[in-house]
Amino acid sequence: MNTRYASLRDRWRHIIFGTDTRAGRRFDQLLILAIIASVVAVTLDSVQSIHQRHGTLLYAAEWAFTVLFTLEYMIRLWVSDRPLRYARSFYGVVDLVSVIPTYLSLLLPGANYLLTIRALRVLRVFRVLKLAQLMDEANQLGSTLVRTRRKIGVFMFAVVVVIIIFGSLMYVVEGPANGFTSIPRSIYWAIVTITTVGYGDISPQTPFGQAVASLAMITGYAIIAVPTGIVSAEMSRAHMVKRYERECPNCHRHDHDPDARFCKQCGTGLPRPEAPQGS
Amino acid sequence: MNTRYASLRDRWRHIIFGTDTRAGRRFDQLLILAIIASVVAVTLDSVQSIHQRHGTLLYAAEWAFTVLFTLEYMIRLWVSDRPLRYARSFYGVVDLVSVIPTYLSLLLPGANYLLTIRALRVLRVFRVLKLAQLMDEANQLGSTLVRTRRKIGVFMFAVVVVIIIFGSLMYVVEGPANGFTSIPRSIYWAIVTITTVGYGDISPQTPFGQAVASLAMITGYAIIAVPTGIVSAEMSRAHMVKRYERECPNCHRHDHDPDARFCKQCGTGLPRPEAPQGS
Amino acid sequence: MNTRYASLRDRWRHIIFGTDTRAGRRFDQLLILAIIASVVAVTLDSVQSIHQRHGTLLYAAEWAFTVLFTLEYMIRLWVSDRPLRYARSFYGVVDLVSVIPTYLSLLLPGANYLLTIRALRVLRVFRVLKLAQLMDEANQLGSTLVRTRRKIGVFMFAVVVVIIIFGSLMYVVEGPANGFTSIPRSIYWAIVTITTVGYGDISPQTPFGQAVASLAMITGYAIIAVPTGIVSAEMSRAHMVKRYERECPNCHRHDHDPDARFCKQCGTGLPRPEAPQGS
Amino acid sequence: MNTRYASLRDRWRHIIFGTDTRAGRRFDQLLILAIIASVVAVTLDSVQSIHQRHGTLLYAAEWAFTVLFTLEYMIRLWVSDRPLRYARSFYGVVDLVSVIPTYLSLLLPGANYLLTIRALRVLRVFRVLKLAQLMDEANQLGSTLVRTRRKIGVFMFAVVVVIIIFGSLMYVVEGPANGFTSIPRSIYWAIVTITTVGYGDISPQTPFGQAVASLAMITGYAIIAVPTGIVSAEMSRAHMVKRYERECPNCHRHDHDPDARFCKQCGTGLPRPEAPQGS
Repeated sequence: MNTRYASLRDRWRHIIFGTDTRAGRRFDQLLILAIIASVVAVTLDSVQSIHQRHGTLLYAAEWAFTVLFTLEYMIRLWVSDRPLRYARSFYGVVDLVSVIPTYLSLLLPGANYLLTIRALRVLRVFRVLKLAQLMDEANQLGSTLVRTRRKIGVFMFAVVVVIIIFGSLMYVVEGPANGFTSIPRSIYWAIVTITTVGYGDISPQTPFGQAVASLAMITGYAIIAVPTGIVSAEMSRAHMVKRYERECPNCHRHDHDPDARFCKQCGTGLPRPEAPQGS
Repeated sequence: MNTRYASLRDRWRHIIFGTDTRAGRRFDQLLILAIIASVVAVTLDSVQSIHQRHGTLLYAAEWAFTVLFTLEYMIRLWVSDRPLRYARSFYGVVDLVSVIPTYLSLLLPGANYLLTIRALRVLRVFRVLKLAQLMDEANQLGSTLVRTRRKIGVFMFAVVVVIIIFGSLMYVVEGPANGFTSIPRSIYWAIVTITTVGYGDISPQTPFGQAVASLAMITGYAIIAVPTGIVSAEMSRAHMVKRYERECPNCHRHDHDPDARFCKQCGTGLPRPEAPQGS
Repeated sequence: MNTRYASLRDRWRHIIFGTDTRAGRRFDQLLILAIIASVVAVTLDSVQSIHQRHGTLLYAAEWAFTVLFTLEYMIRLWVSDRPLRYARSFYGVVDLVSVIPTYLSLLLPGANYLLTIRALRVLRVFRVLKLAQLMDEANQLGSTLVRTRRKIGVFMFAVVVVIIIFGSLMYVVEGPANGFTSIPRSIYWAIVTITTVGYGDISPQTPFGQAVASLAMITGYAIIAVPTGIVSAEMSRAHMVKRYERECPNCHRHDHDPDARFCKQCGTGLPRPEAPQGS
Repeated sequence: MNTRYASLRDRWRHIIFGTDTRAGRRFDQLLILAIIASVVAVTLDSVQSIHQRHGTLLYAAEWAFTVLFTLEYMIRLWVSDRPLRYARSFYGVVDLVSVIPTYLSLLLPGANYLLTIRALRVLRVFRVLKLAQLMDEANQLGSTLVRTRRKIGVFMFAVVVVIIIFGSLMYVVEGPANGFTSIPRSIYWAIVTITTVGYGDISPQTPFGQAVASLAMITGYAIIAVPTGIVSAEMSRAHMVKRYERECPNCHRHDHDPDARFCKQCGTGLPRPEAPQGS
């Protein structure tokens, strides 16, 4: 009995976490399809005309997908060797959060529209399709952003301070009569302006307010250069490091192309580039 | 007869595909002029006041250009050694699609305004004018974008997921009363916001909605740094590779300017840089 | 007596300027909390409904914080060895400006909403939390921006000239009837357009005006590349310089990772990287 | 007589074109002030309330400045050794164009508001103030933009084609009923959208139109990366080339800091960096 249980658990583990076996791949493909279908169903259900005609069907589909994904989540917990670690991982949290809105909608009507959070599950597609290259690119992008997070954080902190000051300045200058009814609302305006979105739902009316707003716009326009510069420089660096990190064991030459197999100077075989880290 | 047919076909090939002969260049120049004239005609015809005065003339011009371009397309197929390959190439498809709307407009009035797709044919101008330098730049730009397409693709995929989530969140927070009448419409709002376009046709009204929108705007403002960084790094890399790829045969020095003809260290003649690939 | 005075002054100096002692850190942490609480209080007070209910409490809090910060400012002046230098430093000016609006509001109602300028004091957080790394990043960002200030300045100067010309051109083309009531207002429109904010509160109505506006938009869209390029290049350079500045004392090899302790070529111990300058 | 004439002409040349003599510098400074005063006068005159009160004064000032600048232009022509070359240079054209609108306003009322074109004359400030460093930065920026003009040109050409196609597509999809009254107007909309300005004066109403518009926005958002990448890469390259171009005459080491006076490896004196070219 114990053996049968273990073998059953083992089989499920292969299906759910495996990406090498045929069953594992098929499961993953079906899962992606189910996720997309489920997001599309929720989206369509929010359109009034479709809701009136197919509401019952879509409601059934929503519950069917939710039950399915709940089962899947429990099986994942069951077959995982370290369930807590899975539960706390990015995908573990996403998997759980992807089923909650339906249950929540029993208490809080409308909560089910948050089911589109399931779209996050689709990110799994990189792992599923075994697109090693794409996976590699995604990892590179991710690690670049991780390495720049401190600089970007410092920058965003400074931007928030600037936004607060511009917001309250405009509140004093323009005042409630011109739509700047409170500092929080003025801060909202400052965000709309500095990010160059510019809805125009609130806009300065007095000449002095327009002058301050002009300053805010030019600030927003100029400082976008900062995060862009940070990310560009980091990516350039990553490129260069990658080229330099392989060395010819014979002539010690660096700067080989990523796909080079022999030293371009002396022809000695090069060590293989390291496989991309991370899952 | 066979010989005359072959020689006729040969002559047309030289005129249509050739860029070295006088006849070939003149044909290309006339073609570009015809394309521009045709696009201008369609554009003007859409202006009500011009349509009323010169409608018949423009209608005639439209058909004239279409018949001309159809003939040209058929001749291209005829004289090409591998007609299918031409038909499936970028320019082949554009050439075909550029004549369809007129015929389509017989069934579907208004389809003829899609004739501006012909503007794409003007891209041929690079080849026509034999602007080797411009062609080279265009190729470089193109190949950079091709090399970054995977990273950009991964990024856009993530952006789409973020847009879906912000869209449905705003649908729940703001609701139909404030213009967010369905999730698809809310997703449209999220795209308008995250790309920092900000029409203002739909904008958040509740304080909580404005807070979520602020988050979306800041996200959009910050992540523009990612594609920009990707392209910048790739272009920097391309620059560097170009400098490094030529090596002095005597002292093995790299890092020569693209227009250098002799090694800047020992004066030995350098190999010529490779000609830009591609047509 | 003199000794007691000196020791008291010394103790306060440690508390206020020190970041190593327990008392100094606790003081700094309380200060940050007080700053944030004070900014939040001002912000909330500007919301009409909150003002009506808790106006008196928030008014009291405002004065309490102001008195507290005034005392702190005076103590800083007192314990500082070179009070003038502190008073003229960035933080000295911010500290003073952070208390003025409350006193000003006695004469000029509404001035107290400018108290959010206090948010600037929060920038002190980097020093307080002893986040050496973050501090380093902030310094790097700062010094990059300082090094690019001339190029950015030249660019902004040119942009201002372009904005003035587009503004007056549109005033002539569109005129007061279409919302372009004066050149200053048209310049405001040009800023809104060239920074790609686009409120839509003023927009061109005539075909010719729309053509000029299109040109302004494309200009704004294209030239954003300039400051971004400036900052990116400067950051890339900073990265590279950092790698090159350490040299192996044995084999004179450069290009070591920032965290490398031994030469990657010959294994000789490397000099330690210089500590980040600045406080 | 001839000598007196020659010496007078010489003296004027020193005053007008010279930047080394005291008189030359003073003339330039006064000129800049006059230019700024003149632009401010034109700007203020366009404000209705100021025009009514000080209209006559400002009108007089406008003519005074115009006569002054006309005289200056003629003197420049007179004292220049090659008058035609000056007349055709950037500043020569600007100097002429800066006086024309006043004379034109006699025939065409309103043309005088174009006098703000004079703002372009202020660009002379770099030369005037002898800010060699600023001048150098401006030259660097200029030469970078000149070197990237072909790539940027190819990019803008492709963007224009994309804009034409999106514009006519929206004309067909949305039609005159939703504000897309003609293809030129739809093209205007496409420019507003792709540059992410987003006035909102025309915006898609139908779901399908919104889908097409979404595509246009995402396109605009993504391709801004291209010119930015071009400029960034070019600036990085310029930085690097600058470091590499000086070589130690003893040990042939490159990669010296711009301000280095001795080789950092062997201590030999380095050749001086070349002075910035251009006037």
